[in-house]
Amino acid sequence: MKNVLAELLTIGDEILYGQIVDTNAQWMSAELDKVGIKVIRKTTVGDQEDEILTAFAEAEKRADIVLITGGLGPTSDDLTKPCLSKYFNCPVAIHEEALAEVTEFFKSRGRELTEINRQQAALPICCTKITNALGTAPGMWFERNARLPDSQGKVFVSMPGVPHEMKLMMTSIIIPKLHQYFKTPAIHHQMIRTVGIGESFLAEKISSWEKSLPQHIKLAYLPSLGEVKLRLTSFGKEPNQIKKETEELVKKLIPLAGEYIYSLQDEPLEVVVGNLLRERNLTLSIAESCTGGYVSHLITSVPGSSEYFQGSVIPYSYEIKMQQLGVNPETLQKHGAVSEETIKEMAELVRKKFNTSIGVATSGVAGPGGATPDKPVGTVWIAFSDREKTIAKKLQLSKDRAINIKASTIAVLNLVRKYI
Amino acid sequence: MKNVLAELLTIGDEILYGQIVDTNAQWMSAELDKVGIKVIRKTTVGDQEDEILTAFAEAEKRADIVLITGGLGPTSDDLTKPCLSKYFNCPVAIHEEALAEVTEFFKSRGRELTEINRQQAALPICCTKITNALGTAPGMWFERNARLPDSQGKVFVSMPGVPHEMKLMMTSIIIPKLHQYFKTPAIHHQMIRTVGIGESFLAEKISSWEKSLPQHIKLAYLPSLGEVKLRLTSFGKEPNQIKKETEELVKKLIPLAGEYIYSLQDEPLEVVVGNLLRERNLTLSIAESCTGGYVSHLITSVPGSSEYFQGSVIPYSYEIKMQQLGVNPETLQKHGAVSEETIKEMAELVRKKFNTSIGVATSGVAGPGGATPDKPVGTVWIAFSDREKTIAKKLQLSKDRAINIKASTIAVLNLVRKYI
Repeated sequence: MKNVLAELLTIGDEILYGQIVDTNAQWMSAELDKVGIKVIRKTTVGDQEDEILTAFAEAEKRADIVLITGGLGPTSDDLTKPCLSKYFNCPVAIHEEALAEVTEFFKSRGRELTEINRQQAALPICCTKITNALGTAPGMWFERNARLPDSQGKVFVSMPGVPHEMKLMMTSIIIPKLHQYFKTPAIHHQMIRTVGIGESFLAEKISSWEKSLPQHIKLAYLPSLGEVKLRLTSFGKEPNQIKKETEELVKKLIPLAGEYIYSLQDEPLEVVVGNLLRERNLTLSIAESCTGGYVSHLITSVPGSSEYFQGSVIPYSYEIKMQQLGVNPETLQKHGAVSEETIKEMAELVRKKFNTSIGVATSGVAGPGGATPDKPVGTVWIAFSDREKTIAKKLQLSKDRAINIKASTIAVLNLVRKYI
Repeated sequence: MKNVLAELLTIGDEILYGQIVDTNAQWMSAELDKVGIKVIRKTTVGDQEDEILTAFAEAEKRADIVLITGGLGPTSDDLTKPCLSKYFNCPVAIHEEALAEVTEFFKSRGRELTEINRQQAALPICCTKITNALGTAPGMWFERNARLPDSQGKVFVSMPGVPHEMKLMMTSIIIPKLHQYFKTPAIHHQMIRTVGIGESFLAEKISSWEKSLPQHIKLAYLPSLGEVKLRLTSFGKEPNQIKKETEELVKKLIPLAGEYIYSLQDEPLEVVVGNLLRERNLTLSIAESCTGGYVSHLITSVPGSSEYFQGSVIPYSYEIKMQQLGVNPETLQKHGAVSEETIKEMAELVRKKFNTSIGVATSGVAGPGGATPDKPVGTVWIAFSDREKTIAKKLQLSKDRAINIKASTIAVLNLVRKYI
């Protein structure tokens, strides 16, 4: 089967000038990869007509599918739409359905439609409109000789650069539509999410298993802060067969690395922890100092978290630790806020005060300030407390504040997962 | 003066497949921009010889400078060096100085030089070696008709993809060397960060000012959730003159949009709010319900925030709102948690309980659950309270939980900025 090739084109001076990082391209690549469409090139050009038109022509020569983001705003520096109109040689006119959508968008927010916004509903007449459920600039689908089934032609899709608008369009409309137009080999991805072990240690633990993988199944290590995802990708003709084969391989992995694996469904740790709490009818409260709200933010980013999450206290200062949480002043004086004694008190106190099954706590030196000779930047204590036990753990993290906040958060969520 | 044009070329399958985000390109763009070299395109291709050679040829046609990262490792999938050797038609041979450096690198780490690593010192004989002080793969500088002074020729530079190795090479060797080879115009960027107004409304407010901009000064709108950044870019001969000219333009913008402008230094809102609190010797506490810790997270992501931030309570359930924060049960029963009455109580109570100058609060229906007929998903109340006043504001946001959390957070930080 012929590979289906895609090129990603990002339009915007702000990316060329290094003022924002283009995270869209990475997300899109990963999504296309999942459905067996091969990205062969990523290109970024600025807000200049000639550059954009050249990039269109070059991309059409190389790829079956050209996915474009950016340059769709209502202002004069946004050139993607006029360029597409020129490239496909078709004029722009108000699209009635798009106008109704953008009018409704503003109405639902109690605002009037300005002329500038009305122009967002003007589209090249040769394209198919793609509804933008989260914003005002519709997406546009163009095709050249791309008739169903088994297209040999070309498809151009233009999407807004705003990540959440683009992502919803891709997953709900564009990927399913591309699937209709292009035949791709059967592909199966299995994500195996691990936490609490570094990449090289994990690789050593599973090296015999890795060596046993057949040639049509590829393994990738995808490390991120505090976590390593393993991705198994199988190619074949028969979707059910490669899925079954992958499941067998995962079963063989469990005895080697099971204690670190927290999801086979590619769910984040806060979702897995939330599900465990819900299933077991447990409630959670949090006392977070050095993480400053980030643990609570991850927990509450999950829809329905109010079923198990009661609340938190963020006792940033000594006074609040004593007065609002009730930490014993003597403990603080004798051992300091970053200590085993204080962290255990914090986890127990928040559990009792908030009347929950489980209490967790964080306290540490996130940096850059606040270090002492025996507690350098990156020293963090975390604790878990339920009716039977209180478990504290010391972490020695990095010099970087943002990394310390995020790594402590992952570690405390993992503590809940393990001791629940 | 003719613009000096650069193209950035990233080589590696792992970027095409979406397994890592290419942050190198963004950093390099920003560095080149500072010295007046204009990046006209960024391209990513995979580990395939024909793709790489085509990208070289295309880039050479468009740009004066081609900066390449990636594909320099010691393994067989790293093709950048053989491709450069082929493209410049010159053979590879061991470079004695490079060999001494890589030998020393391994020696200093107590390791022996393997044959694979020895090959890292083999370079195309027509290039100039660039020392890699932090790793084993040297950089390579190629030129075609690029004689000093005032080159009309082409320069290719190949660097490792490891960010800290690439960055040191760029700042210590490559940028200074490019400065010798190419004369660049002066360039000045001015960021103007706004909050609390949408892109199209801002564009209408400042349209007369925008139309008055001279041709050598460009305006860009960079919208993100709840914010719009304006970027003015000026080109000229005299750095001081274009800087002064930009400052004059910014002064004329203030009467039109001053109330929305929160930074001319490209600082995030939480940094600006933190600076205002510190300057005025004020302290802050937060009662956040629907934002679930995200306001506190942004505030505490700023180093030194413990100087003004005392702490927070996240009263997610009704019980915690009453028992830990002290919200009057009658208020909750009569008006609900998402109401003007409750939000005002929350902001006042946290201020008094935590003994701070300022208290702020959030409460809303983040979604997808929890809506009622009169309080649909996206209904959010925020409040600010100090010793003299309590100000509440109602927001009507989106259907998306993550957006509602982030947009409420931006709005409440903006409330602090305005009423402090």
